[in-house]
Amino acid sequence: MRMSGSPNLEPGAALNALQVAELVSGQLEGESEQRFTRVMDLAHAESEHVVFFRAGADTAGRRPSNEEIQAFHDSKAGLALVDDSVENPGRPCVRVANPSLASAILSRHFEVPTQYAAGVHASSVIAEDAQVDPSASIGPLCVISSGAVIGPGVVLVAQVHVGPGSMLGAQTILHPQVSVYERVSLGMGCVVHSGTTIGAPGFGYVWSGERHLPVPQVGGVKIGNGVEIGTNSCIDSGTFQPTEIGDGCILDNHVQVGHNAKLGRAVVLCGKVGISGSTEVGDGAVFGGQAATVGHLKVGAGAMIAARGAIMKDVPAGATVAGFPAVDIKEHQRDKVKLRRLLRDAGKKS
Amino acid sequence: MRMSGSPNLEPGAALNALQVAELVSGQLEGESEQRFTRVMDLAHAESEHVVFFRAGADTAGRRPSNEEIQAFHDSKAGLALVDDSVENPGRPCVRVANPSLASAILSRHFEVPTQYAAGVHASSVIAEDAQVDPSASIGPLCVISSGAVIGPGVVLVAQVHVGPGSMLGAQTILHPQVSVYERVSLGMGCVVHSGTTIGAPGFGYVWSGERHLPVPQVGGVKIGNGVEIGTNSCIDSGTFQPTEIGDGCILDNHVQVGHNAKLGRAVVLCGKVGISGSTEVGDGAVFGGQAATVGHLKVGAGAMIAARGAIMKDVPAGATVAGFPAVDIKEHQRDKVKLRRLLRDAGKKS
Amino acid sequence: MRMSGSPNLEPGAALNALQVAELVSGQLEGESEQRFTRVMDLAHAESEHVVFFRAGADTAGRRPSNEEIQAFHDSKAGLALVDDSVENPGRPCVRVANPSLASAILSRHFEVPTQYAAGVHASSVIAEDAQVDPSASIGPLCVISSGAVIGPGVVLVAQVHVGPGSMLGAQTILHPQVSVYERVSLGMGCVVHSGTTIGAPGFGYVWSGERHLPVPQVGGVKIGNGVEIGTNSCIDSGTFQPTEIGDGCILDNHVQVGHNAKLGRAVVLCGKVGISGSTEVGDGAVFGGQAATVGHLKVGAGAMIAARGAIMKDVPAGATVAGFPAVDIKEHQRDKVKLRRLLRDAGKKS
Repeated sequence: MRMSGSPNLEPGAALNALQVAELVSGQLEGESEQRFTRVMDLAHAESEHVVFFRAGADTAGRRPSNEEIQAFHDSKAGLALVDDSVENPGRPCVRVANPSLASAILSRHFEVPTQYAAGVHASSVIAEDAQVDPSASIGPLCVISSGAVIGPGVVLVAQVHVGPGSMLGAQTILHPQVSVYERVSLGMGCVVHSGTTIGAPGFGYVWSGERHLPVPQVGGVKIGNGVEIGTNSCIDSGTFQPTEIGDGCILDNHVQVGHNAKLGRAVVLCGKVGISGSTEVGDGAVFGGQAATVGHLKVGAGAMIAARGAIMKDVPAGATVAGFPAVDIKEHQRDKVKLRRLLRDAGKKS
Repeated sequence: MRMSGSPNLEPGAALNALQVAELVSGQLEGESEQRFTRVMDLAHAESEHVVFFRAGADTAGRRPSNEEIQAFHDSKAGLALVDDSVENPGRPCVRVANPSLASAILSRHFEVPTQYAAGVHASSVIAEDAQVDPSASIGPLCVISSGAVIGPGVVLVAQVHVGPGSMLGAQTILHPQVSVYERVSLGMGCVVHSGTTIGAPGFGYVWSGERHLPVPQVGGVKIGNGVEIGTNSCIDSGTFQPTEIGDGCILDNHVQVGHNAKLGRAVVLCGKVGISGSTEVGDGAVFGGQAATVGHLKVGAGAMIAARGAIMKDVPAGATVAGFPAVDIKEHQRDKVKLRRLLRDAGKKS
Repeated sequence: MRMSGSPNLEPGAALNALQVAELVSGQLEGESEQRFTRVMDLAHAESEHVVFFRAGADTAGRRPSNEEIQAFHDSKAGLALVDDSVENPGRPCVRVANPSLASAILSRHFEVPTQYAAGVHASSVIAEDAQVDPSASIGPLCVISSGAVIGPGVVLVAQVHVGPGSMLGAQTILHPQVSVYERVSLGMGCVVHSGTTIGAPGFGYVWSGERHLPVPQVGGVKIGNGVEIGTNSCIDSGTFQPTEIGDGCILDNHVQVGHNAKLGRAVVLCGKVGISGSTEVGDGAVFGGQAATVGHLKVGAGAMIAARGAIMKDVPAGATVAGFPAVDIKEHQRDKVKLRRLLRDAGKKS
């Protein structure tokens, strides 16, 4: 399955139903003369739009409500991406294994990202010994410090700061007002959103008897390829070695990753998650919103942490945990049921 | 009642007691030759200052402590705004129905906001095809992107970013280092504080089998009139349709509003609140600090969510809820009392 | 004990073992011809590196794991800073009372902070009536507003905003994209990291019957000496009097300090802590990550608030509290044990 367009299709071009089916590797059912221009939600779709729908549960176990089923049938969309759970799509459709994924692929065809012209805007301030690839696009009012290395096709949209010696891999894009400190490297194809800081010194102090003495944090940050970070998040510098974010991780807004933490590949951190210092998170682990860890722990590969879960000890690979302190989610739910029963019985007695 | 000054009173001018009474639509008791220059807290007030006080409970049910009552009597303030709960104000006073509101109105008279001169600072970078009203004030080192529309009287204090095609309504003010992405509109008279981001793509990914594939988020953000947003908050772009913030909403610092969420009018989100994707919040709902919702829910008009409440299912209009998961606050409090009793009894037995 | 280098030692210079011992006021055991160049973690240390280790519990009660003990013995480091709990360091060592503190002092010798040249970068915009000490370093693309006062040796790294009339004490450093509003003063030797905002108006509104009317917040912020604040934190302006942060406080990332709050000296606020309006925190109090208070409370000197603790009433000096609502940590832990027992017994019965 292609992830971004077809060699034969110009990005953004309107597509007929067969081209849609080809792009998402699906099977067209029904006929349509329409040329489709975008993916749309059920309520707002018109005949030139494509919607997507499943009647069964998605990977998170969520099923469409009756309201949503009705909205699908009422939708004016001219084409639907559906899986086998949809018996009567009521219009031409493309059968696919995963309608969400197919819609993402199709939407990525239609919605061409903003293009940025190569070159350095005259208002930006670039250190003489910084290396900026000629194909990079340095927008207005950026600062690139001494010794920094900006790779091919990199985009600094505007007002970005890149600290001394830091390195940005090819095609990485930094949105306005990102602050990269020194000793930071980002891999290829990363996206970092406004207000996020990378490489500020970790929160390391020792009490001297008189004051909190700052411990130098010179390990920096090492971010892999294809990492995406939301707005106003913070990735702190390690103490002696880099804080690490593996390839393909996705971090939402207001996320904090403490010093010396190590995230594996494709880890998901939802909004406001806090990963404390020196904690290691295995490949593919997922943290729900506001979840947090104490420091010096290991969270195994593929572990799922429910929203607001508080990790106080190691989490085995593949486990799903919830609560404060977080325990296996089945135990957590059993305990909740028991507690509810205890409180109900207490209510009867009193 | 006037919300901002009187046609007859120059903003910021010192006022005599009668003028104060007139401005706040109150009744003067006692006489004073003093001209008053500002509203002040009880402890620091001098004879030329006005204080405000109530002896009864405020709308949140909070009553003054004995310490505060003593501070009122000890205050050197020359004039007091009080309601009928205060029997012996001990100095000239202005009787009003709501001393807090009266003090706000009076303070808004005295404390004239910083004025910003119309025009574009030479250091700012404005796209050729952006429309900037001549009465707008564009401070230093701002970026206004292609196709953006900046209305009359708008203020960009400094170092603000406005993305392609985004629109700012009349008299809206953006403080330093706000980042507005593309497809964003703000209404009239909005205030956005430093570090806040509006319109970054929502956290929408689909697992492709190999990676978290980003789903284009092209719905943008639509913000009404008179909305105020604190610092370092994040309002994400909707997927197909705008994320919406209704007229008169007030959002504190570190607030996150996820993609496709819809807030009604005059909603209050306190510090660190997280509204997840596709959640709808009715008019006048209030979220306490650190409260959060999961996605795809409805919170009814006028609902009150206690601090750190975690909304896991729809909340009816007018309900007050607390806890994780949040339930009706009376049930929550009953359960807490019961639990405390259970634990006490368990303590006796063991 | 010296906190930052010796008068006889050039900052950053390699040291022999005796010089290390002298710098950290320790006792050298064993001999070494090596010249040491930095402090390093156990796993990555080479012969020219210094490590630190204790076999007993640290101040937080944390003991090294067997894995860590093995790592110490396997480390290639040429010198170790240890306390008396380490019986067989297996290499030349320096005995000290507190290895963590000694390592911090030593690392502060080796890791010389970035130096910033005095002067104002031509791209910065400085108001005519701002006072900038000639020894200050104003990096690129900063804004210093009317009436601001920038002390000797101050560093604004880049893209910093200083509002009207605000004052920065000697040697204070503001990292890129810090936003200081008006009526703010910082003392000497403070460090503020990227994205942090100081002095935005506190979240103060009064319902007018029609809208949330903003109450002017003109008290500003007063920050003492030697205060360090992480990234994307928010310190709001007081209403009539300043919000206050005492000398030597350390604040992590994503911290919010509400209007009129007062922090004493050397307070520690870990990541994502929220201090609500008008709350007073005594000297040396420590808040764990995500902990929060409601407003108008007092937290006594030296109090310890466990991570995610929610302070709903005054906390006595020296107390350690946990939970929501936070209670004495012993009571909290007893209750947890009791609850676990109740749930276990309930499980048996059902």
